[in-house]
Amino acid sequence: MKIIDPIVLKGTRDFLPQEMMRRNYVMKIIQDCFERFGYSPIETPILSPAETILGKYGEEGDRLTYSFEDRGGRKIALPYDLTVPFARYFAANYRDLPLPFKRYQIQRVWRAEKPQKGRLREFYQCDVDIIGSKSLLCEAEIVRLIVEVFETIGLKDFKIKVNSRALMNSVLKGFNVDDENTLSVIRTIDKLEKIGDKVVIEQLKLCGVKDASSLLKTLQNLSKDGVEDLKQFFRYCYELGVEDRYIDFDPTLARGLDYYTGLIFEVVSDDGEFGTICAGGRYDNLCSYFCKEDFSGIGVAFGFERIMLMVEKLGLFAQNGLSSQVLVTVFDDNYVSDALSVYRNLIEGNISAEIYFEPQKLAKQFKYADRKKIPFVAIIGPEEKENNEVTVKSMQSGKQKTVPISQLATFLKNYEQC
Amino acid sequence: MKIIDPIVLKGTRDFLPQEMMRRNYVMKIIQDCFERFGYSPIETPILSPAETILGKYGEEGDRLTYSFEDRGGRKIALPYDLTVPFARYFAANYRDLPLPFKRYQIQRVWRAEKPQKGRLREFYQCDVDIIGSKSLLCEAEIVRLIVEVFETIGLKDFKIKVNSRALMNSVLKGFNVDDENTLSVIRTIDKLEKIGDKVVIEQLKLCGVKDASSLLKTLQNLSKDGVEDLKQFFRYCYELGVEDRYIDFDPTLARGLDYYTGLIFEVVSDDGEFGTICAGGRYDNLCSYFCKEDFSGIGVAFGFERIMLMVEKLGLFAQNGLSSQVLVTVFDDNYVSDALSVYRNLIEGNISAEIYFEPQKLAKQFKYADRKKIPFVAIIGPEEKENNEVTVKSMQSGKQKTVPISQLATFLKNYEQC
Repeated sequence: MKIIDPIVLKGTRDFLPQEMMRRNYVMKIIQDCFERFGYSPIETPILSPAETILGKYGEEGDRLTYSFEDRGGRKIALPYDLTVPFARYFAANYRDLPLPFKRYQIQRVWRAEKPQKGRLREFYQCDVDIIGSKSLLCEAEIVRLIVEVFETIGLKDFKIKVNSRALMNSVLKGFNVDDENTLSVIRTIDKLEKIGDKVVIEQLKLCGVKDASSLLKTLQNLSKDGVEDLKQFFRYCYELGVEDRYIDFDPTLARGLDYYTGLIFEVVSDDGEFGTICAGGRYDNLCSYFCKEDFSGIGVAFGFERIMLMVEKLGLFAQNGLSSQVLVTVFDDNYVSDALSVYRNLIEGNISAEIYFEPQKLAKQFKYADRKKIPFVAIIGPEEKENNEVTVKSMQSGKQKTVPISQLATFLKNYEQC
Repeated sequence: MKIIDPIVLKGTRDFLPQEMMRRNYVMKIIQDCFERFGYSPIETPILSPAETILGKYGEEGDRLTYSFEDRGGRKIALPYDLTVPFARYFAANYRDLPLPFKRYQIQRVWRAEKPQKGRLREFYQCDVDIIGSKSLLCEAEIVRLIVEVFETIGLKDFKIKVNSRALMNSVLKGFNVDDENTLSVIRTIDKLEKIGDKVVIEQLKLCGVKDASSLLKTLQNLSKDGVEDLKQFFRYCYELGVEDRYIDFDPTLARGLDYYTGLIFEVVSDDGEFGTICAGGRYDNLCSYFCKEDFSGIGVAFGFERIMLMVEKLGLFAQNGLSSQVLVTVFDDNYVSDALSVYRNLIEGNISAEIYFEPQKLAKQFKYADRKKIPFVAIIGPEEKENNEVTVKSMQSGKQKTVPISQLATFLKNYEQC
């Protein structure tokens, strides 16, 4: 028989158990944070009608979307992200949902990109979104959640870059303020109430703004669109205890996707090594692709794969992977029933346990326990059998103790607590 | 703008939060059982090279496999089940894995079937497999695990049908024993050591076997292939505490898939309403598609969607879905900061909490809490603000209590324990 090369496609991956345990560990932290902040889990299909995905991410997005025709002639696409599928989901189901609706969603998405380090074709995103409220409390809550997620994982050196699309669109296009100075300009404007027009205009000129009084006037007219939002947002963040060092107003931040309309976010590590690890923003019009009603939404996607790269590099794992607590060894062919009886005892005592399948040399069975990081082995040889006992050996210390079979589960439970 | 119909493809589904919580609840039970029995999590890609999927499930299987050509001209298939992807995975990675290798895998699979009740195009399977051991202890362990999973979920009325492919192939084709009598025939043979040839032959004749002595001879020659395996398997099951009522030897059981070679299993509810809810068996040659080495494997797939249907019907859910413990209400526009301060307090006290985003009437905010089954609301009005306090109201009893803001988290933690 011709042997088929057991390969995977480039940009997709097999996960070995050790990797999976680490991924599950980090994913559980993210999920727990989401739930603690009141986001509900949902799921959307992977095979999707192409028209519900294409045309919402700009040209580049369409080019990178996996799409094909199935045998029934239906045009199918695979999710490019989780935001557009969520907008569709919401339009289809909002009558049955509490409003505003807060959901989280952890699923794979696909990009037909040239695979390279940090760029995969098949990967996970972890999204939170709120639909049905325009309040800036949403933005602040999501930023607080971002801080919670990264701090709980153990990542402390990151920045949440913030900008306003509305502000970007109206101000930066109108005045020739260079990127370098925008932050000082914004900060100057923010002091308006305290220091008054005249001082602000002077300071703006120091920032290199030629037509400062005209800019100020424009901004004052714009305040509701942009500056006021940012001010309020920063105030809310402060009141929620988000430390200043985590937030970085970045007027150059633009985010590529077509659908953002309000504040936008991008999280990077301080050293910038892993690129964007979380990003999102407010989208006012996305649902209108799918329904007549007007719903504003905001959300962010956590880039799970890049977060894992950071976590790996920083070694932020809980010490212990998952494994059984005890391996029941099989002394030889004549002791299978005895091993089974011990194993049954452990199952019924709710102890995580395995039985070794072959009556091989004990050394080989111990090696298996070692390989799987199983902390204890249970041995039933001639002496133990005679006394209805079992010997428990710690793989780490080598110490062993013989106890009645009926007390084994209790013994291991107490041991766990020590 | 033309509105796009927010539909999903037939045979695929959106999951609403309530449904997701139930699914997560059942999935977690299954996962916990798998881990308790020492199975390690793995994951395989969804987009797969077509040659690693097609040609292993028979004609019917190939016809039902989703496959397409991507823009780069690569032939892609989506997983039809998790067993073949696992065989490929194992062939690619076995040098890095502990042997025998026990893995579990919970992922979606796809079938290009005509969608109908209980037949979906996109659905979850939960698989356990052991590769690298021919011991019948594997079969017995997996049957014990099946019992553990269904009992823990709360399903008690099920049967695990068992048959041996080897036995089927050699005996049933050779003799004209009708299906009805095969079990009694097997049971008679099983008593051979106790009652001897002569009595067995007499009893076989009573079972309607014409050429009884010839059958006995054939079976005695076959014992290593089939009968002996079954006997040993049943003995192991007994020793692991699997109750007889759960196991049903069914010589007519065949399982459609090409790749089974040894014992095969199929689990159905006693009333048979939901069809097969779990199935699998031993496959000796599956890995040889992908590598030269000889590895025997055995595994079963739990049909998650059908299990959910059963669980729904029997109402076997834990009482409480997941929700935040408390909703922080916003009294009016002037109390946003106060609400934020309470909310911050709860986040930092590790209490699952939400803040309401709009300063709407309290009645509307309470309704939201009710809708999301949030048990408590926190209110900060003029009096509370003056005294730096917060009023906590139970949504169920309507009772309320006013406590200092700084004590709110502790108050709720203690309440939880009552």
